[in-house]
Amino acid sequence: MTQWFNSPDWTAIGLQFGKILLQLIVIFIVYGIVKRIAQKMITRSFERMQKQRNMSTSRNKTLEKLAQNVFGYALLFVLITIVIGLFDYDVTALIAGAGIIGLAIGFGAQGLVSDVVTGFFILLEKQLEVDEYITVAGVDGIVEEVGLRTTRIRSFNGTVHFIPNREITSLSNHSRGTMQALVDISIAYKENINEAITVMQTACDAASENDETIVDGPHVIGVQHFGDSDVIIRIIAKTENMEQWAVERKLRQAIKEALDKNGIEIPFPHHVILDQRS
Amino acid sequence: MTQWFNSPDWTAIGLQFGKILLQLIVIFIVYGIVKRIAQKMITRSFERMQKQRNMSTSRNKTLEKLAQNVFGYALLFVLITIVIGLFDYDVTALIAGAGIIGLAIGFGAQGLVSDVVTGFFILLEKQLEVDEYITVAGVDGIVEEVGLRTTRIRSFNGTVHFIPNREITSLSNHSRGTMQALVDISIAYKENINEAITVMQTACDAASENDETIVDGPHVIGVQHFGDSDVIIRIIAKTENMEQWAVERKLRQAIKEALDKNGIEIPFPHHVILDQRS
Amino acid sequence: MTQWFNSPDWTAIGLQFGKILLQLIVIFIVYGIVKRIAQKMITRSFERMQKQRNMSTSRNKTLEKLAQNVFGYALLFVLITIVIGLFDYDVTALIAGAGIIGLAIGFGAQGLVSDVVTGFFILLEKQLEVDEYITVAGVDGIVEEVGLRTTRIRSFNGTVHFIPNREITSLSNHSRGTMQALVDISIAYKENINEAITVMQTACDAASENDETIVDGPHVIGVQHFGDSDVIIRIIAKTENMEQWAVERKLRQAIKEALDKNGIEIPFPHHVILDQRS
Amino acid sequence: MTQWFNSPDWTAIGLQFGKILLQLIVIFIVYGIVKRIAQKMITRSFERMQKQRNMSTSRNKTLEKLAQNVFGYALLFVLITIVIGLFDYDVTALIAGAGIIGLAIGFGAQGLVSDVVTGFFILLEKQLEVDEYITVAGVDGIVEEVGLRTTRIRSFNGTVHFIPNREITSLSNHSRGTMQALVDISIAYKENINEAITVMQTACDAASENDETIVDGPHVIGVQHFGDSDVIIRIIAKTENMEQWAVERKLRQAIKEALDKNGIEIPFPHHVILDQRS
Amino acid sequence: MTQWFNSPDWTAIGLQFGKILLQLIVIFIVYGIVKRIAQKMITRSFERMQKQRNMSTSRNKTLEKLAQNVFGYALLFVLITIVIGLFDYDVTALIAGAGIIGLAIGFGAQGLVSDVVTGFFILLEKQLEVDEYITVAGVDGIVEEVGLRTTRIRSFNGTVHFIPNREITSLSNHSRGTMQALVDISIAYKENINEAITVMQTACDAASENDETIVDGPHVIGVQHFGDSDVIIRIIAKTENMEQWAVERKLRQAIKEALDKNGIEIPFPHHVILDQRS
Amino acid sequence: MTQWFNSPDWTAIGLQFGKILLQLIVIFIVYGIVKRIAQKMITRSFERMQKQRNMSTSRNKTLEKLAQNVFGYALLFVLITIVIGLFDYDVTALIAGAGIIGLAIGFGAQGLVSDVVTGFFILLEKQLEVDEYITVAGVDGIVEEVGLRTTRIRSFNGTVHFIPNREITSLSNHSRGTMQALVDISIAYKENINEAITVMQTACDAASENDETIVDGPHVIGVQHFGDSDVIIRIIAKTENMEQWAVERKLRQAIKEALDKNGIEIPFPHHVILDQRS
Amino acid sequence: MTQWFNSPDWTAIGLQFGKILLQLIVIFIVYGIVKRIAQKMITRSFERMQKQRNMSTSRNKTLEKLAQNVFGYALLFVLITIVIGLFDYDVTALIAGAGIIGLAIGFGAQGLVSDVVTGFFILLEKQLEVDEYITVAGVDGIVEEVGLRTTRIRSFNGTVHFIPNREITSLSNHSRGTMQALVDISIAYKENINEAITVMQTACDAASENDETIVDGPHVIGVQHFGDSDVIIRIIAKTENMEQWAVERKLRQAIKEALDKNGIEIPFPHHVILDQRS
Repeated sequence: MTQWFNSPDWTAIGLQFGKILLQLIVIFIVYGIVKRIAQKMITRSFERMQKQRNMSTSRNKTLEKLAQNVFGYALLFVLITIVIGLFDYDVTALIAGAGIIGLAIGFGAQGLVSDVVTGFFILLEKQLEVDEYITVAGVDGIVEEVGLRTTRIRSFNGTVHFIPNREITSLSNHSRGTMQALVDISIAYKENINEAITVMQTACDAASENDETIVDGPHVIGVQHFGDSDVIIRIIAKTENMEQWAVERKLRQAIKEALDKNGIEIPFPHHVILDQRS
Repeated sequence: MTQWFNSPDWTAIGLQFGKILLQLIVIFIVYGIVKRIAQKMITRSFERMQKQRNMSTSRNKTLEKLAQNVFGYALLFVLITIVIGLFDYDVTALIAGAGIIGLAIGFGAQGLVSDVVTGFFILLEKQLEVDEYITVAGVDGIVEEVGLRTTRIRSFNGTVHFIPNREITSLSNHSRGTMQALVDISIAYKENINEAITVMQTACDAASENDETIVDGPHVIGVQHFGDSDVIIRIIAKTENMEQWAVERKLRQAIKEALDKNGIEIPFPHHVILDQRS
Repeated sequence: MTQWFNSPDWTAIGLQFGKILLQLIVIFIVYGIVKRIAQKMITRSFERMQKQRNMSTSRNKTLEKLAQNVFGYALLFVLITIVIGLFDYDVTALIAGAGIIGLAIGFGAQGLVSDVVTGFFILLEKQLEVDEYITVAGVDGIVEEVGLRTTRIRSFNGTVHFIPNREITSLSNHSRGTMQALVDISIAYKENINEAITVMQTACDAASENDETIVDGPHVIGVQHFGDSDVIIRIIAKTENMEQWAVERKLRQAIKEALDKNGIEIPFPHHVILDQRS
Repeated sequence: MTQWFNSPDWTAIGLQFGKILLQLIVIFIVYGIVKRIAQKMITRSFERMQKQRNMSTSRNKTLEKLAQNVFGYALLFVLITIVIGLFDYDVTALIAGAGIIGLAIGFGAQGLVSDVVTGFFILLEKQLEVDEYITVAGVDGIVEEVGLRTTRIRSFNGTVHFIPNREITSLSNHSRGTMQALVDISIAYKENINEAITVMQTACDAASENDETIVDGPHVIGVQHFGDSDVIIRIIAKTENMEQWAVERKLRQAIKEALDKNGIEIPFPHHVILDQRS
Repeated sequence: MTQWFNSPDWTAIGLQFGKILLQLIVIFIVYGIVKRIAQKMITRSFERMQKQRNMSTSRNKTLEKLAQNVFGYALLFVLITIVIGLFDYDVTALIAGAGIIGLAIGFGAQGLVSDVVTGFFILLEKQLEVDEYITVAGVDGIVEEVGLRTTRIRSFNGTVHFIPNREITSLSNHSRGTMQALVDISIAYKENINEAITVMQTACDAASENDETIVDGPHVIGVQHFGDSDVIIRIIAKTENMEQWAVERKLRQAIKEALDKNGIEIPFPHHVILDQRS
Repeated sequence: MTQWFNSPDWTAIGLQFGKILLQLIVIFIVYGIVKRIAQKMITRSFERMQKQRNMSTSRNKTLEKLAQNVFGYALLFVLITIVIGLFDYDVTALIAGAGIIGLAIGFGAQGLVSDVVTGFFILLEKQLEVDEYITVAGVDGIVEEVGLRTTRIRSFNGTVHFIPNREITSLSNHSRGTMQALVDISIAYKENINEAITVMQTACDAASENDETIVDGPHVIGVQHFGDSDVIIRIIAKTENMEQWAVERKLRQAIKEALDKNGIEIPFPHHVILDQRS
Repeated sequence: MTQWFNSPDWTAIGLQFGKILLQLIVIFIVYGIVKRIAQKMITRSFERMQKQRNMSTSRNKTLEKLAQNVFGYALLFVLITIVIGLFDYDVTALIAGAGIIGLAIGFGAQGLVSDVVTGFFILLEKQLEVDEYITVAGVDGIVEEVGLRTTRIRSFNGTVHFIPNREITSLSNHSRGTMQALVDISIAYKENINEAITVMQTACDAASENDETIVDGPHVIGVQHFGDSDVIIRIIAKTENMEQWAVERKLRQAIKEALDKNGIEIPFPHHVILDQRS
């Protein structure tokens, strides 16, 4: 080390430095060209593939996003390998205790490997596709992009969430088949339960007639709970995917109007007052 | 490294590359054929097995799903091993500090091994079968598929949950034998408790007559709690599996109607008011 | 690797494969026979043992379940060892970096060893027996089976819980000796505390007379708390195991009726209203 | 491995097996005898020791339970060592990658070592004795047994808790010296605070006269808090150990009666109503 | 060690010390000069780059902050390497058990590596830019600076948060595209729902006319929930980024005024009183 | 192992055993004598030191407790080392896989080392002294003893807490300088805020006159919050250490009496009632 | 070991011991002298530095505290190294399995290294200075001292918190630039919103006139929320650092008085009562 400080061969170092710089420039230009060409090729082949095989758009999108993502990381990996190769590991040789640093890197990079391993299996097991509505790690939204390291989700309120795959411990996918619409209606204790159920069922049947988003039901299934001031009746229905909220809103309005018309009370909180004037 | 950059034998590399590409194509075609044939064979042998041995459909389904799953992973493993073999580990040799990367992979893959070990024991100990209703990791639903790495559960609301087996710390299976229906009914403080219990028991007996889903009971077991304004009486019954909710709803309606007929009050919240006009 | 791809000795491989297959079949048949015989022998020796030594049924059941469990795992372990031996580790030799995979397995299997170590000590220290009522890992119920790896508990509502032993950090056993029945009764502020205590004590004494499930008490121990609108009096008793809830229900009804008869008020929430008409 | 399968020397194996079986039987008989004799010796020497040295019963009990516990584990350890020695490690030699299994065991057994190390220091530092009332790991009760691995606590409600020592992060011992009784009393806003304090202090003094369980106090220390409808006055006292609850109950009753006699109101919740008839 | 204590060659040590001191001074001066020059060069090149390429200010700022940050750490790293080189590792050689200390450092530095790895990928995947509004690790605010180790965020209340990158498990970016404004309005049970929806829609349309911050809507989507005393109607709209709060406030005021004008009641909590005069 | 079982040299073993026993007895006697003498010497030297140097009692007590604690552990460590030396490690040599056990011990003892390292720095940085009032690990009380492994704290209610030093993540010391007394007073919305503040300030000034425990203030700092039915005014003061609660109680009573005298209302909860008689 | 017990050369040991004792005394005296001189030198150079360079007091204080802290630890480190050197590692050589102990120390000391690494970066990135108001690890207060291992913070209530740097996961600094004052005011539903906003804005403008602590605003930004009985209007302002609370209190009083004067109601909770006399 001290020798380097006293009398280095500046000319040799200069030459060496110039050579490396030149190589770096060439490498980065090649990297840029390869990346652009490859990305276009990926996009085009997926377009062609979709036409030929009549794949679902969603599956096709997922695979295209993924191919871009994997290719990008692979190219980056090759780039870093070549660049490090240029320097002949002189830098790392300078540092004492490379083993310690290696240990630290091993532990630190552990998260990255976890991301990739988890991501690989999520994709292999087709747990999600682009444009599906999912809940992971306390966040829910539409999948925008799936990658080896990160999954991108857009909430209904517009926020974009970036979730490292390792955070995806259990994944809930809301876009696989029919969904359940569930409405709880309170009626007063003084009402006749059977009559109320009949009124609700009739209202539900009328509301769901000609509604193609409702697959099964709605069924008024009975007394779910006794509240402080109300008897709670539950109605469930099976709907087309993502239509459950619209159906719930529709049923709520229809039932409310039917109950009003039939004079069945939706009660306010009741209190019995025992007055003791002092 | 620098030599490679200056004067590589491009012809040799091209030949090598072409050979590997050819082999890759052959391998993937073979992989595709083997996978399809094997899957059909598995499905057919399970169908035949079920006919011959009169196995329960649930157990048969579980084993078929599992066999497909295990076979799929085994084939994939063979594929990866062969593909890596083609490259003669040249890529990894390039990277300095392979030990560090190995450490990272070891730690990262730890989760995968945990999944498989846990999955193996869950299946060996028959903790669940396809079509059973279970609760794991804060999620409940019907088991759709069991695998070495992941368990797939469908909630009643239609959502599909993918749970890595390592997340299954303790598993609650709701499909093993009779279940308990439990109903809590509030009566007013001014009512006679013994009379109320008799009325409830009579109503329960009438409701459960000819009901084959009720295995034992219902029994009115007594005063469970003194509320602010109500005395809470508990009724329990043993029912056939998955029928507990229907029984609870039926009992609730029957008891409510019986109490109304006998003039026993289900009380609203009571308050004593001490009026001090200013 | 590439050689294997070009010109493998297919005949030799076929022969080798056939030989291994034959051995596998023989091994599995032997495994099946040994398992069935051994299980019957275990069941029978425990039956004989119980007759000869007058062991408690509970302890006997625990030991039989455990013996079956341990024997099953031991046999499985022998089976796996023999099967792996057949292949001469060729498979693992194929994979580069076996050390890494070993590391992953070591970490992944760590949970299994934790299960067995914890299970061993739970059994050695007789922390639980089959048919006891316990609480572990946030779940409570009757122990159905104890094993080296898993403990099976059935809740009162019918659900079966499988708890890996490592999840059992602290174990609460409710089936070891007499239990405490505890009833809190609210009386109005305007009542005389001493009189109320006397009434309650008399009611409790009457209710517990000739009740063999009550070991000691019930004792009215005094004013536990001043509520917003009520003075809370606590009654405790010692009961036979698992009878505490029945005793509590009995005491509640008895005290309520005694208070009603003696005109001591169980108060509703009180409010003082200062009316400022605008 | 395959050789073993083809032509093993069955006679030699049989002889070997018989010899080991014989040794095992002898060992277990010796183990049983030694254990029983030693346990009696320990019990007797502790009885004699207590007579001679006038040790406190609690300390003596702790040490006896501990001695039994440590001796039991030591003997078990010797037994396992000898039994494993009989087999000459042939079993473990069969398994490839013993290092991996060792790693798993090392990690798995880590909890056991934690238990013993923590237990050793808890005992060395005399943090608890048998029959003391303590709180550990969210559980409180009377210590029944202290061991190297586990501490056994019995709750007041009769439940027995087994706590592995490693779970004892911080330990709260409620049986070391005098305890504090603390009573909070609400009085109405309209009352004179000084007068109320005088009445309470007088009542407390009367109640604590000739009460030997009260070491110091009770002192009415002043206005602790302004509630929505009440002024909260705090009373504290120092009592003999485990007598704090009885003292608190006694003080509550005495103060309540004194306030009633002096016409000082314990207020119900107050509300000001601004009536706007529509 | 003891020799060093008895007879060290003080002259040699002095000379050695002087030489190292001299070198240190030179190094630090050079470090200071290089740092200042480089920082100016970075700032200037980014200014020029922005003019030439018409980059977005936000992206440009991000890259400039990052370049400064990376350059600063790289220079520091070189400095430390050179300084340690001066001492020829004499210091570390003094300490026994360097391996142990190495282990500790490796574990301790693990967090640092995690920071850098996570930071690298956050930047590579463009998860955030300077001036964007994000939520990470329970903190939300405007990004002020992104670095390899730390991200700096300023809350709206003025507080500056420094978040180590490893704490950024999942990142929510609120500045990527249009946002959703969501307003929930309560109306009385007695009102006609269809009329109320019409009035609200008209008010929303009037309020959003000529408002360029509203991209889509507002739409009154129907009955979201039945409250205790109110029917809750939901209104949603798509707005320009960061304008969602202003739009929400504007819609709230407009709808309130429209409901007042049309005599549709926003209800206070309702209670039914059953008066039982004593 | 088997040889040992067949023909051991019982005489030699007996002699060896006797010799070790003799040495053990001598060692333990010496240990007992040294411990007692050393403890007395430590106590005496601290007494003398306090007289000579006029050290604060608190600091002196801390150091004495610590010296006793450190000396005790050091002696124990020497004892264990000597005792293990007597056995020449024969025991550990018996156990196969000492490395595994070593690993387990290393991990298990990790907690102990954490305790000592943390304890060392807590003492070095003088974070606490005996008799100070601190909060650590969710527990607060007076420090009774500080040790290398454990800190002993006594709560005001009499409970003694033993906290392993590693549990002390962040330490809050309430005995370092003046403390803040903080009182929040509600006044009615109809009162004039300025007048109320003046009345309170006057009352506070009167109450704090001649009170040497109040260092600064009390200051009425203004409107802290608008409640549902009250305007909350905050008063703060600086007091001598541990006097903050007494000052708060005194200020509360004084302000309450001043507000009563000046007719400023401390309001009960207010409600506006809109009566709709049905 | 046994030899040492039988015939040690006591004279040699004595001489050795004496020599080491002498060296220890010399070392500690030198340590004391060096420490005192160095501390004074550090204090003086910082004083001189402040005068010459016009550094901010806060920055100067931070650096001085830090220099003292780092120097103290460095000296302590040198001391320990020399003292251990005196003993020639004889002690550690005595202990079998030094590797195990080393492992334990490595793990235990891991926390210490984490502290120093985190502390180093907190200081390097200037995340805090002495006298700034920050929130870390759930604790907020004024920074009193920053160190390599610990940060000392004093809460406003007088408590001193010692936070190990590793506990500082994310740091919130409240002393960097202007802060936001935020006041929420409730008005009755019957009031005109525009009129109320005008009145509030006027009151705020009057209150903030000539107030130099308010940098921007206050602005009444509109309807933030519809409460059960009130419409909530939000007011925000930008203030000088640490003046936000005073400004908030001032604005609250000013707005309250303005609303009173203009007859705009701040409403109490409203309830609609439906009276059903029985």
